[in-house]
Amino acid sequence: MTETVIEKLQFSLSSEMTDVDLLMRERMKSEKVDLIEKVAGHLINAGGKRLRPLLTIASAKLFNYQGIKHIKLAAVVEFIHNATLLHDDVVDKSDRRRDKRTANVLWDNKSSILVGDFLFSRAFKLMIETNSPKILSILANSSALISEGEVLQLSIAKNLNTPLETYYDVIRGKTAALFSASCQTGSYVAGATKKQTNLLYNYGDALGICFQIIDDLLDYRGAGDSLGKNIGNDFKERKVTLPLILAFKDASNQEKKFWERTIEKGLQNDRDFHLALEILKGQGVLEKTYNIALKWSEIAKENLVGIPDSQTKDLLNDLCSYVVSRIS
Amino acid sequence: MTETVIEKLQFSLSSEMTDVDLLMRERMKSEKVDLIEKVAGHLINAGGKRLRPLLTIASAKLFNYQGIKHIKLAAVVEFIHNATLLHDDVVDKSDRRRDKRTANVLWDNKSSILVGDFLFSRAFKLMIETNSPKILSILANSSALISEGEVLQLSIAKNLNTPLETYYDVIRGKTAALFSASCQTGSYVAGATKKQTNLLYNYGDALGICFQIIDDLLDYRGAGDSLGKNIGNDFKERKVTLPLILAFKDASNQEKKFWERTIEKGLQNDRDFHLALEILKGQGVLEKTYNIALKWSEIAKENLVGIPDSQTKDLLNDLCSYVVSRIS
Repeated sequence: MTETVIEKLQFSLSSEMTDVDLLMRERMKSEKVDLIEKVAGHLINAGGKRLRPLLTIASAKLFNYQGIKHIKLAAVVEFIHNATLLHDDVVDKSDRRRDKRTANVLWDNKSSILVGDFLFSRAFKLMIETNSPKILSILANSSALISEGEVLQLSIAKNLNTPLETYYDVIRGKTAALFSASCQTGSYVAGATKKQTNLLYNYGDALGICFQIIDDLLDYRGAGDSLGKNIGNDFKERKVTLPLILAFKDASNQEKKFWERTIEKGLQNDRDFHLALEILKGQGVLEKTYNIALKWSEIAKENLVGIPDSQTKDLLNDLCSYVVSRIS
Repeated sequence: MTETVIEKLQFSLSSEMTDVDLLMRERMKSEKVDLIEKVAGHLINAGGKRLRPLLTIASAKLFNYQGIKHIKLAAVVEFIHNATLLHDDVVDKSDRRRDKRTANVLWDNKSSILVGDFLFSRAFKLMIETNSPKILSILANSSALISEGEVLQLSIAKNLNTPLETYYDVIRGKTAALFSASCQTGSYVAGATKKQTNLLYNYGDALGICFQIIDDLLDYRGAGDSLGKNIGNDFKERKVTLPLILAFKDASNQEKKFWERTIEKGLQNDRDFHLALEILKGQGVLEKTYNIALKWSEIAKENLVGIPDSQTKDLLNDLCSYVVSRIS
């Protein structure tokens, strides 16, 4: 089996990533409350791709960084990511993640909410250790965008007329904000120029948007691998994502009625997801969605052009293709 | 009707408190998501005593502070407080707060969780505007203690053998940590000496502990005023607080069986809260609890001795008596 670019990145940055894992294990502990380490550890030790820490470490390595602040930053972004996952799983009533039962199922909603808050607070403690006002400001903006995006997503649920612009606000918040912050802070601590950190910010932004569009597409098309995510969830939860927005815009009257019944009114029966797929395929919406993701993947790549050549840069470049290839 | 010391504090600091309210209204807005302002505003505009911002502003005023950083800090601590309330009400399934229906009832759990996260992120943005590593460090520690205390509270629920020390860890986290941070940061920005900020920290810590013990006592004894809190909730939710810990330690075998049935096993009927009260009264536990609170109120006062005299100091001193007087 050929190695994925994520595995190559993990291998090439394995020494730093081991440090990140050690730091996370140390900082997720609470002297007084065992439950915290159990709940946080259940999720964090389940692995996941560690994509955000990889982006931080790689972004620092692009500029030959020799210090240790990128380790802390990588732990920060992974803590924030896992905190939002704990809260998301409560909000979405999810029962599986990373091929394991979710904390809200194994423990309860209370523990997931409060341990999520704990991880946020530990992320906060770690980031102030970097002693850099600029980094704090990037991460504060990113945190605000994340929670704004999450609430925006709630408030557009079931709204079939969601403008494309609003969809982008949502996915910028829920996904791209932390990708871009990971790249921007990693390059910033490494002493990149302002122009270079902006390029890395834009790279992360476009990669994150691409990543989330593909995620939303996978929810309709599925993939052969084990994403630990069930196909059809967004439809069941009446989430309005890119495939639906595109489909509804060009829908026939009959199709409009179908979407209004299943999404707006939530009247769904067992065959409806299958029907939904047929409509989407008939309109060529899945391909359109894929092509939009591909465009963002290209935008991500373009931002790497102005960065000094290196093996790490090649891997970050390949990552753009990998993110869209999850579907093909 | 005589004015309470809280009303006197509010009057004496009314100009600053107006600024705090304006700043909070401005910073709880989201350009893109109306829902955020609705949910956050529902809670924040409901008023409440604004005790934590009052502590911050008063602590700065003790040292004749002339700047504007205390306004930001006051908004920060009130945002953090309201974020934890939004999460607590989901965790406790509460339906009323501040004499209004809770956000989790008026909207849903999802909105309360995510708008809580939003308030945390806005608090974070505001606090880095103070541009002070020391303040960030105080608030980061405080945030970590808060969420640790909240999870600890979860994990001791139903455990009648909870050590007193653990109870203190819980209430230090859930209440005192933000009281002490409010006082410490307020005095710190005002240029107080290290000794003075430590005194203010200890004042806030003791006041917060006293406040929470009285809160836990009120859950059994009730008070004439409208606290917006239902008597008997802790018993129903099987929360182990000071009255129960004291009662169980000296309980007869029959009483032990009663507590084990109602708290450990959760087998409660309509008459049980009444029985619980009789046991507590028979053992003199409510008085014992009150006396412990009174002791913490005295500790709070003692820490003010080393602070320069002023009208504000007198009010902070009276506040210690007021906090215990809520019960009498």
